[in-house]
Amino acid sequence: MEEFDRIFYPDTVAVVGASNNPVKAGYHITRTMIDEKFKGMIYPVNAREKEVAGLKCYASILDIKDKLDLIVIVVPAQYVYDVFVEADKRGDVKGAIILTAGFSETGDPKLMDLEDRIVELARKTNIRVFGPNCLGIINFDNNLITGFAPGLKMTQRDIGFVSQSGALGSSVLMLAGEQPIPLGFNKWGHIGNMCDVSNLDLLNYFGQDKRINTIGMYTEGVKDGRQFLKSSREVSAQKPVFLFKVGRTHMSKKAALSHTGNLAGSDNLYKAAFRQGGIVRVENMEEMVDSCKASSMLPRAKGRRVCVLTNAGGPGIIAMDEIEKDRYVQLAPVSQKSIKKLSKVLPSMAMICEPNGYIDMTAAAMEYEHTESLKIVLEDENVDAVVLIAIPPVYLNPVSLAKAIEDALEKYNKPVTICFMRSEIMDEARKYLEERDLPTFDTPDRTTRALINVIKASDNLGIEYPENNIIPEPYPKIKNWVKEHRNPFEHEGLKMLKYYGIKTMKNGFASSVDEAIALAKDIGFPVVMKIVSPDIIHKTESGGIQLNIRNEHEAEAAYFAITGIVKRKFPKAKISGVFVAPYIHEGIEIITGMSVDGQFGQVVMFGLGGVTVELFKDVSFGIAPFDRDEALKMIHETKAAELLAGIRGDKPKDINMVADLLVRISELSVANPEISEIDLNPVKITDDGYYILDTRIII
Amino acid sequence: MEEFDRIFYPDTVAVVGASNNPVKAGYHITRTMIDEKFKGMIYPVNAREKEVAGLKCYASILDIKDKLDLIVIVVPAQYVYDVFVEADKRGDVKGAIILTAGFSETGDPKLMDLEDRIVELARKTNIRVFGPNCLGIINFDNNLITGFAPGLKMTQRDIGFVSQSGALGSSVLMLAGEQPIPLGFNKWGHIGNMCDVSNLDLLNYFGQDKRINTIGMYTEGVKDGRQFLKSSREVSAQKPVFLFKVGRTHMSKKAALSHTGNLAGSDNLYKAAFRQGGIVRVENMEEMVDSCKASSMLPRAKGRRVCVLTNAGGPGIIAMDEIEKDRYVQLAPVSQKSIKKLSKVLPSMAMICEPNGYIDMTAAAMEYEHTESLKIVLEDENVDAVVLIAIPPVYLNPVSLAKAIEDALEKYNKPVTICFMRSEIMDEARKYLEERDLPTFDTPDRTTRALINVIKASDNLGIEYPENNIIPEPYPKIKNWVKEHRNPFEHEGLKMLKYYGIKTMKNGFASSVDEAIALAKDIGFPVVMKIVSPDIIHKTESGGIQLNIRNEHEAEAAYFAITGIVKRKFPKAKISGVFVAPYIHEGIEIITGMSVDGQFGQVVMFGLGGVTVELFKDVSFGIAPFDRDEALKMIHETKAAELLAGIRGDKPKDINMVADLLVRISELSVANPEISEIDLNPVKITDDGYYILDTRIII
Repeated sequence: MEEFDRIFYPDTVAVVGASNNPVKAGYHITRTMIDEKFKGMIYPVNAREKEVAGLKCYASILDIKDKLDLIVIVVPAQYVYDVFVEADKRGDVKGAIILTAGFSETGDPKLMDLEDRIVELARKTNIRVFGPNCLGIINFDNNLITGFAPGLKMTQRDIGFVSQSGALGSSVLMLAGEQPIPLGFNKWGHIGNMCDVSNLDLLNYFGQDKRINTIGMYTEGVKDGRQFLKSSREVSAQKPVFLFKVGRTHMSKKAALSHTGNLAGSDNLYKAAFRQGGIVRVENMEEMVDSCKASSMLPRAKGRRVCVLTNAGGPGIIAMDEIEKDRYVQLAPVSQKSIKKLSKVLPSMAMICEPNGYIDMTAAAMEYEHTESLKIVLEDENVDAVVLIAIPPVYLNPVSLAKAIEDALEKYNKPVTICFMRSEIMDEARKYLEERDLPTFDTPDRTTRALINVIKASDNLGIEYPENNIIPEPYPKIKNWVKEHRNPFEHEGLKMLKYYGIKTMKNGFASSVDEAIALAKDIGFPVVMKIVSPDIIHKTESGGIQLNIRNEHEAEAAYFAITGIVKRKFPKAKISGVFVAPYIHEGIEIITGMSVDGQFGQVVMFGLGGVTVELFKDVSFGIAPFDRDEALKMIHETKAAELLAGIRGDKPKDINMVADLLVRISELSVANPEISEIDLNPVKITDDGYYILDTRIII
Repeated sequence: MEEFDRIFYPDTVAVVGASNNPVKAGYHITRTMIDEKFKGMIYPVNAREKEVAGLKCYASILDIKDKLDLIVIVVPAQYVYDVFVEADKRGDVKGAIILTAGFSETGDPKLMDLEDRIVELARKTNIRVFGPNCLGIINFDNNLITGFAPGLKMTQRDIGFVSQSGALGSSVLMLAGEQPIPLGFNKWGHIGNMCDVSNLDLLNYFGQDKRINTIGMYTEGVKDGRQFLKSSREVSAQKPVFLFKVGRTHMSKKAALSHTGNLAGSDNLYKAAFRQGGIVRVENMEEMVDSCKASSMLPRAKGRRVCVLTNAGGPGIIAMDEIEKDRYVQLAPVSQKSIKKLSKVLPSMAMICEPNGYIDMTAAAMEYEHTESLKIVLEDENVDAVVLIAIPPVYLNPVSLAKAIEDALEKYNKPVTICFMRSEIMDEARKYLEERDLPTFDTPDRTTRALINVIKASDNLGIEYPENNIIPEPYPKIKNWVKEHRNPFEHEGLKMLKYYGIKTMKNGFASSVDEAIALAKDIGFPVVMKIVSPDIIHKTESGGIQLNIRNEHEAEAAYFAITGIVKRKFPKAKISGVFVAPYIHEGIEIITGMSVDGQFGQVVMFGLGGVTVELFKDVSFGIAPFDRDEALKMIHETKAAELLAGIRGDKPKDINMVADLLVRISELSVANPEISEIDLNPVKITDDGYYILDTRIII
């Protein structure tokens, strides 16, 4: 993306609001860029200063004779628009970074309007705008720093970071700087209010930037969920993307809302977007830094079989606990040959592959044992990656242990994360390893988590996502439905489901008792009967349902019972007749359906039925449309997968069939954007197939 | 505990196996004690050395003329017994610490036996033994260090730490040493194989030690669960106890097993023990250090209402996410008066109590705003504790911000945890605060978690646990049952439940069809009928159950059906007759029961019935006996609480009644230790009461 290249690699930068007063941001920005040796021209702009930080100061950007690529703006909000007027006059400015706060984030309509007018003017003149209310960007290639970064270590590496919070964006720099060797970045950006340039723009740019091989991202929400999914897929197939998303819960969402406007969507949908987009979610800033470090230093994993090699029991068990937390990776099935070799190398006290994949060398292991054991497990075809816990006991020199580890790792192209502990006395050894791109971590859990995240990211590399051009035709009747009423009758809805390849049971509509009895006979007893009325939505609560109707006599009685009760309760309701369908009692109850989300559009929901949904919130979502693989992942995200696979010796149900049902719903959802909601609740899954027992569609 | 005082405060220590060879442990131990200036006499013992580290070396402890309080042993395993023989001869030794590995932890019967013989001899001579396979103890009062602690900072404070792992025990010292001001301990111990002195002994000793006000503990398991519960209660009522327990899952338990022998019990039972014992569980070593630091520095909390005061949105939201993770604390309902005051103090951009309890001062807040806001919320009666996120922006000097915070905190006796970020440039400010006992943390989540843990620990202080002397009489028939068979008939079991105040339904045993019909009529239809046979345990699988018997005719049919089917399937089974009880269909299905655990003895289980138990493992345990409060906590640990409270507008059920059922089961369990298992599955909870639908007792 050339337009961002011009902003991240400007020849000239004007600091509008540059100052000699150390309590002003304009002072720190100018100073920082000079101190960090930005490889370009800096032009301070401030009508009240002749000189700033030893540089000539200009009254206006119009006075700068040189060409002008980028302007950094720190003047108060009311003067910002004028800067863009001047930039418009110049015509050569490519980008603007507004650090000033006090725009749309205040919720004040006047200030929101001011922000809008600035963007409008900038668009006209082809200026891309970062902010307002941001720290802007850092480019470690040319030492461009538009914000201020006290304590920043300008180490260069291949990590790109996009932040929606200034404080968190800064903290990632601080935490990275505190690593045994300061962990470097290639580019960094804090996008503030995102009036123009968004976190997605930077994600895309960093995705295409060959100098970046790992991306970290902090977000409270995205403006366009669909676009986010698209960008995520494109980027995560190229390079690992680690994302820290906050605002999981109701209360924190409220806080996020007041902080970032209206971006905080349901965490459930973000979870779906991360899964479908190949994004690896991290839980805190330490995990972010750990994962970026591991990804930046390590080769990609070719599989999920992890060996835990430790010289201390307690930390080894902690690593095992971490592996089992999300069960994404598995313990490596180390070969008998390797086990034999290990038993020759290791002290007699060692516990070798109990359980398999877990090796406790014990504190008696010296340099030789570390080197040889590592070689043996790395050589093993059944091992894809290794967590090495090598906490040096007092009689083992940390640096000489580090060298022993380096010796073993030299020739194997498998990811290994290494736990020394955080401590001054480990620093030299850890530095030694990290200088050789062997990442070390503070604790066994973090060491293990970093490796798991690298494996997750590796799994997403190279994925070719299906093109979404398989959207079928809209349902012919949908236009009439829109005109007629907001919720089509159940028998009409079922016709639509059938049209899209969803299996429906024989069913029908009867407008008289005789028709109802005949229909029931035709369908075959037992049947259910439900009221059909444009005025009744909640059939159960209105008394409009009779279950398990076993014969003609009961059918007759059911007809009069339903129509009678509804008439009595809702005298004004127009009763069209009754809906008749088979009665199914057995089977596993699931619910599924779709709805339209403000950020993500059509999304499909899946979960176990019954009280489970409400109690355990055990549901998963998919952003429509999706394929069977994705639908299977949705199912496996819930406990329904276990139930469908058969517990207590039950016969396993056809999980692919259930997945296909979800795929069909996803397709019909995007084909018919008029539909705002579908509820199939419950659907019974039996050995024979699935049976949709209730269908509700809202247009 | 005087005996441990004599070990932790010895006048003289012999190092048996002292050495001048730096690759030997005996070198490091002697050196460390000299370097760290142990306040007592050190006597190196080694027949092959004249002098070690400048001190005269003795051939045997028998040669030491001075009295001898403590011996530290690092000679190879085969020589250890002899040292105890010599100690026996001396008669004045109080304690021995065996660092040497290669005893019971190897699983080798010979070495296990050797360990046993050592303990036997030591008991005879009143010597308490730490280890083998341990680092021993550190006393920061007199600089006694029996292990080796490279990089250890001998800062003194009031924390006691007990570790079951040398590596983890050392790591807590390292992590503590890395705090802005090195966090000090009072005493520290690694107990190794626990051949004599156990982690519980140290817990008890630290509990009684007035110099210790906070205890941290790392464990993989305890030998005696009951004793652990008793000690936990005694100690946690006096001072906070934070515990890190690993080996949660099946695989990690296997690793723990091979590491520590057979101590790793079910994590579910440990969870119960922690809840009932007032122990605060932490999830990793960083949280351990954070919690110990916060607890050591802060006053106790008087309630759970927490205010989040932040100058940065992103970190504030992270704090909110953390609060909502376990919902132990709640956001403080800040008073209108305080809100008014805050709005006068804070910049117009600030978000004050949206939601209530959450205050984002924004980056525009300077020293004054921090001081005044803090004062306002601390003054508020509705606020019990504060998470302060005060990440200084570039134009705010960290130290001057720290001073502003100190000013506000001076006169309020409420716990406040403070988030600066981890970074060199924050170090001075963090040091300033921590020197004044104001704890600072690296990230907002850790800041919040530390405060929550202090609040949890505060809630356990001063608790007077009920004496367990309410155990009722054993059931009169139990002795007969033990003689007769392993599982009493259902009607007999129900009599026992009734004896202990558990509500049972009218029920009975019938040995003929006529008796069965008469009994059914007497009970009132509908009823269930079940086979009664000493040879049939699984009634459902054997075809021995008929449900929903609605009249005499069906009762007759059911009798013949049951007896006929069972006879056909199990021709040799002795059929005594049938059990008859009311048929109950409606209600919430729960399961409960008891079993006997190797470590914890009688434990009561509670959970939702149906597939939920298997799918979601949503069960909780209680160590018997317990009272209603504890039973309510058990229920609230599961989703059953929500269901019983009424979802979907259901009428709430009587949760106290359910709790009392659990209490009764807990009581009858301890009253009748002969019983190895009780299963009440299912129990239906209705608006009227509870109905036990199946009872199985195993003796």
